[in-house]
Amino acid sequence: MSSFDLSVLLFLQLAFILTVCRATALVFKRLGQSQVVSEMIAGVLMGPSLMGWLWPEWSAYLFPAESKPILFALSQVGLVLYMFLIGVEFDLDLIKSRMRSAASVSLAGIVVPFSLGAALASYLVGDSQLFSARTTVMQAMLFMGAAMSITAFPMLARIIFEQGLSKTALGTLALAAGSLDDAAAWCVLAVVLASFQNRPELAVYAIGGGLLFGALALLGLRRWLRPLGQKVEQEGEISPALLVFVLALVMLGAWFTDYIQIYAVFGAFVMGIAMPRGKFAAELHRTIYPLTTAFLLPVFFVYSGLNTRIGLLNTVSLWLLAGVVLLAATLGKGVACYAAARWHGESHREAMAVGALMNARGLMELIILNIGLQRGIIEPGLFAIMVMMAIITTLMATPIFERVYGKPARRLQQQPGGAGSPG
Amino acid sequence: MSSFDLSVLLFLQLAFILTVCRATALVFKRLGQSQVVSEMIAGVLMGPSLMGWLWPEWSAYLFPAESKPILFALSQVGLVLYMFLIGVEFDLDLIKSRMRSAASVSLAGIVVPFSLGAALASYLVGDSQLFSARTTVMQAMLFMGAAMSITAFPMLARIIFEQGLSKTALGTLALAAGSLDDAAAWCVLAVVLASFQNRPELAVYAIGGGLLFGALALLGLRRWLRPLGQKVEQEGEISPALLVFVLALVMLGAWFTDYIQIYAVFGAFVMGIAMPRGKFAAELHRTIYPLTTAFLLPVFFVYSGLNTRIGLLNTVSLWLLAGVVLLAATLGKGVACYAAARWHGESHREAMAVGALMNARGLMELIILNIGLQRGIIEPGLFAIMVMMAIITTLMATPIFERVYGKPARRLQQQPGGAGSPG
Repeated sequence: MSSFDLSVLLFLQLAFILTVCRATALVFKRLGQSQVVSEMIAGVLMGPSLMGWLWPEWSAYLFPAESKPILFALSQVGLVLYMFLIGVEFDLDLIKSRMRSAASVSLAGIVVPFSLGAALASYLVGDSQLFSARTTVMQAMLFMGAAMSITAFPMLARIIFEQGLSKTALGTLALAAGSLDDAAAWCVLAVVLASFQNRPELAVYAIGGGLLFGALALLGLRRWLRPLGQKVEQEGEISPALLVFVLALVMLGAWFTDYIQIYAVFGAFVMGIAMPRGKFAAELHRTIYPLTTAFLLPVFFVYSGLNTRIGLLNTVSLWLLAGVVLLAATLGKGVACYAAARWHGESHREAMAVGALMNARGLMELIILNIGLQRGIIEPGLFAIMVMMAIITTLMATPIFERVYGKPARRLQQQPGGAGSPG
Repeated sequence: MSSFDLSVLLFLQLAFILTVCRATALVFKRLGQSQVVSEMIAGVLMGPSLMGWLWPEWSAYLFPAESKPILFALSQVGLVLYMFLIGVEFDLDLIKSRMRSAASVSLAGIVVPFSLGAALASYLVGDSQLFSARTTVMQAMLFMGAAMSITAFPMLARIIFEQGLSKTALGTLALAAGSLDDAAAWCVLAVVLASFQNRPELAVYAIGGGLLFGALALLGLRRWLRPLGQKVEQEGEISPALLVFVLALVMLGAWFTDYIQIYAVFGAFVMGIAMPRGKFAAELHRTIYPLTTAFLLPVFFVYSGLNTRIGLLNTVSLWLLAGVVLLAATLGKGVACYAAARWHGESHREAMAVGALMNARGLMELIILNIGLQRGIIEPGLFAIMVMMAIITTLMATPIFERVYGKPARRLQQQPGGAGSPG
């Protein structure tokens, strides 16, 4: 296929992807579900698990192998811009303000699922449907531990925000714990990816390069950008020229972290943290968020769905394993966070809400899983099991949260824009 | 290269493209030039005309052939979103209000350059550096005529808007004449593209399909979307769900017009015209414009620049021809529009301003040239000549306009965001 043919097909793919996402969102919104759930499921539906199985010819026509590099590139651009915005909204002060209780909830929410995940991995690592042959026991344990510890931080933040809980004890606790957990899980993943090099010096480059990048961005760049932050504060808006400059920085960070073999999303996230706060951050959100979430991110969900083959789970033992993974994920994250919050003196209702929100894996889990699959750490069988776990833990979050927060929350959620954001 | 390698490279390409565009814009802004000029030139500089010539190895590393489909796809997505916004801002009422004078300026601005272009083409059509062997005399004349008649409508609109001339006689005249001219040139191009089929029934599909699409969008869809326009008017903002729906429509229109072998930009433009006006249109602009112009459009300028080989102009006669083309373009468009405006009773100063603005070809010319090259109507030699004509006519516009509008205009232009928009 020529470049032109591929671009014609891309328009059809995008029209189809956006339409299916929209239709799925309509159904799931009626069921009281968040948008991220509907997009995760829409992605799986458009992949081999449903569309490729029911209509193999249409599926082969719409998503031929030749078009994969373009879809992958678009999805990566979307992810990078999205993770950048997550970084932009990452609030260090908030974590400092609730350090003690946040630390204990987030510690529970990372130690318990990590341990359970690592234990499961040590038991599963020989299975060629689950882990690739070249994955060591240690790498499998670290990856599975990190993957279990993920929290759908963006979704959690959006729900807290929409319910008007941002300034409450519950809201601050959940936001601080969630962001700490995600940051920790991403660091572990960076170590896994770095260690997953054949030559040890490459791991040194990756870890050393990552640390250097983090230091340069968070200490040097951040300070250097401060005057620009003040300029935007005075002028009230970000100029097109400054936006181009910021986007160039984001792309450079994404490239560098990809190049040293950690991953583009880290670079983008760290660049986001380095941006000035206040009006500058708000303007970045205003200019980048709408098109990124409405247009580019759905491509990532589909790309992820194209990799998800639920049909691979064709034995009873694999389905049993899927159940065990789901149980471990929920016990390790949701229940452990509930317990930590209760232990810290929160009411049953608040602790349940925190547990449900922390338990949702959302988009973040799909990112980490796709990295693992693409790097050859895990195999399509475990990928499918983990995607199901991610979808189900995310599905559970909104109903539990709504139930413990009752009707007032439900009334608030029906305000415009209440469909939630990809997590 | 794997999908992953290509996406790593894409981040580097984007970082490089955005940085070069930013640096070029800084230089050209100081020279009092608009942003579109600097981006057109930045694109040419990153192509074989400069970077590929000075640093062939770096150029081959940064823009390998394998990455072209991804850059092309991204640039097409950017163009389609941009042309959609141009359609959204297309103001039919404005044209109606100044019908008589606008008609005479726009008629002059299309009949004269079209005739000169067609005459040139009839003389040049046998040359294998300029036109492909399978281009007929009639097609060459139509294409060259349409390409000569293009106006950088978005740039014209931005300059009028920035100078606060939107409601003045001059502003209304220029906006109405510019939009009429562009619409006419695009229609001629559609006919050329349709006629450029080997089999006549394909031309029928193209023209018939285009007319059907236009009728469905402008009569059916436009009416059908009206309640959504009222909803947005009441709510004050476009919901994420509605944005996804609109983007799906745009992609569908782009796909359909590509599929029937006219071109995606038509579909997007027509979809834009079909959108409700008022708050709905403003919200589409707010959500789509920033990332499209800051992030995606620069990729198109580079893609166009990668196709531009000024080194092909290696004979005196080709440089002479370039001069003749530039002269014909400026006489045909700028001088003819000046004369028509004078004849209609405008002052010398106003007529000069209208002529200068109408003469700029901007981004619109690059679009039509890239279509011609990609469809095999013109050859790289003529492409390079026409790109130079587009750049020089665009370069001329701002200084002439500034000079006839003097210091007050210059003071206004130094306001934030005054760098102009891609035309």
